[in-house]
Amino acid sequence: MKTAARIGPVTRWRNKVEVINGPIVFVPTMGALHEGHAALIRRARRMAGIKGSVVVSIFVNPTQFGPKEDLAKYPRPFAQDLALCKREGVDLLFYPAPEEMYEGDSSVKVCESSLSAGLCGASRPHHFDGVCTVVAMLFNIIRPDAAVFGEKDWQQLAVIRRMVRDLKMPVKIISHATVREEDGLALSSRNRLLTSSARLLAPRIYQALLACSMEAEAGESSVARLRCRLISDLAGIPGASVDYAEIVDESTLLPLKQLISGSTSRALVAVKLGAVRLIDNLVISR
Amino acid sequence: MKTAARIGPVTRWRNKVEVINGPIVFVPTMGALHEGHAALIRRARRMAGIKGSVVVSIFVNPTQFGPKEDLAKYPRPFAQDLALCKREGVDLLFYPAPEEMYEGDSSVKVCESSLSAGLCGASRPHHFDGVCTVVAMLFNIIRPDAAVFGEKDWQQLAVIRRMVRDLKMPVKIISHATVREEDGLALSSRNRLLTSSARLLAPRIYQALLACSMEAEAGESSVARLRCRLISDLAGIPGASVDYAEIVDESTLLPLKQLISGSTSRALVAVKLGAVRLIDNLVISR
Repeated sequence: MKTAARIGPVTRWRNKVEVINGPIVFVPTMGALHEGHAALIRRARRMAGIKGSVVVSIFVNPTQFGPKEDLAKYPRPFAQDLALCKREGVDLLFYPAPEEMYEGDSSVKVCESSLSAGLCGASRPHHFDGVCTVVAMLFNIIRPDAAVFGEKDWQQLAVIRRMVRDLKMPVKIISHATVREEDGLALSSRNRLLTSSARLLAPRIYQALLACSMEAEAGESSVARLRCRLISDLAGIPGASVDYAEIVDESTLLPLKQLISGSTSRALVAVKLGAVRLIDNLVISR
Repeated sequence: MKTAARIGPVTRWRNKVEVINGPIVFVPTMGALHEGHAALIRRARRMAGIKGSVVVSIFVNPTQFGPKEDLAKYPRPFAQDLALCKREGVDLLFYPAPEEMYEGDSSVKVCESSLSAGLCGASRPHHFDGVCTVVAMLFNIIRPDAAVFGEKDWQQLAVIRRMVRDLKMPVKIISHATVREEDGLALSSRNRLLTSSARLLAPRIYQALLACSMEAEAGESSVARLRCRLISDLAGIPGASVDYAEIVDESTLLPLKQLISGSTSRALVAVKLGAVRLIDNLVISR
């Protein structure tokens, strides 16, 4: 596995890659890699084939953290991340420092104004501009044919798809189903920050989503009633504070009044358990 | 010469181009091509060589025009533009309609917040976001190795260079000196909108810039005094209204107090002659 902390070597590597050998498939991450990331990397490997290339980036992007958020506390277990990438057959690991990515007088951003407004964007006002900007930068540096994103951060996935569509980026976006613990908790680098009692309660977030999904499948089509039940289930988790729980169109993220047969709706939730904010989502269909 | 109004054929063309044959050099335009554009295309041709490719786009980008600006009046002499491109040996001419570039619910923009604030940006508040967004889109569609921009719109050139730097775009930006009429007037598609009396007065914009440059070369280093003379020369043109006249650092576009030997300063001006707004600029050095 080749590793690079600087852009120059990545560019030189990229200029030598023969397109004919197979696609370059990219998995952008913030590190603290877990089985969810490993699943994304394996998906990238299958798509690239033996002759294509899998590129992983590890970059805890400061511009997507708010001033009161957990940038400093975000876990950075680099040696373990490196081992996981090697084990999964990654071809190139790019792990720039913030100074390699951002100039002191940097003044250009990529901004999304529709899908970013609600949900996580409501409490994290510049988060998705930071995400769009860094993903655009990484795409420009790595020039992948495809990039793999997890479905756990559904809003991020929808925003990235919108950016690629609107800016005509030549990158195919692949999504991968959320990987869960046996008890249903969605894998997240932030799970390791949970206290042991919060960890025991955390699977109830997924249970609330499942109950909502089952109610819809049983015939309930009123989004107001489904959402009411979802919020009450989440609020019933001891010590939980519900940041949001919405049932939206899965592409536009616009709120719905009724579930419509054949269309794709999704419940998206964010819940704070103690100091740790967890997100999850599930498809809701009739 | 291949022509394409849709993105699909451009993508297919681009995927077949062998990098080994020579660079792809891109000249983005709004059409109404004149000798200034022809000079940019010839520069692109020299850089691409016989085996490389020259791509020209013609797109009057609606998002860079304000609601009260001349979008509808902007000249669109397509047959003449096509002939010029053929004559200059362009390999691919891309001329999308607005609907091909922008979705109805488009929500992603590229925004520059520092160099765009003053000069033309002061009276055209969203102009450079529109420019950055469309240039990013065109770069993503055409994936050129280099792109050629005229120096006449110096602020645009500086903003594009900043965008390429900050978003790590894999495109080399080449600038080409302003092409002028024999009487000094900078070539512009908007010159044809001048009345015949305004056309006779228009070269005095360049004369004022030249006088400023000569005064600096003769030893004047106070930007306030140089600028005062420049504004008074421009304001002395009958019927002219000076939108701005600034002497700035040519990369950051920040205002200067003194000319410093060895550093690069530039005078940038915008003047309205009747209904037509003309811009020009000139290097100012000691």
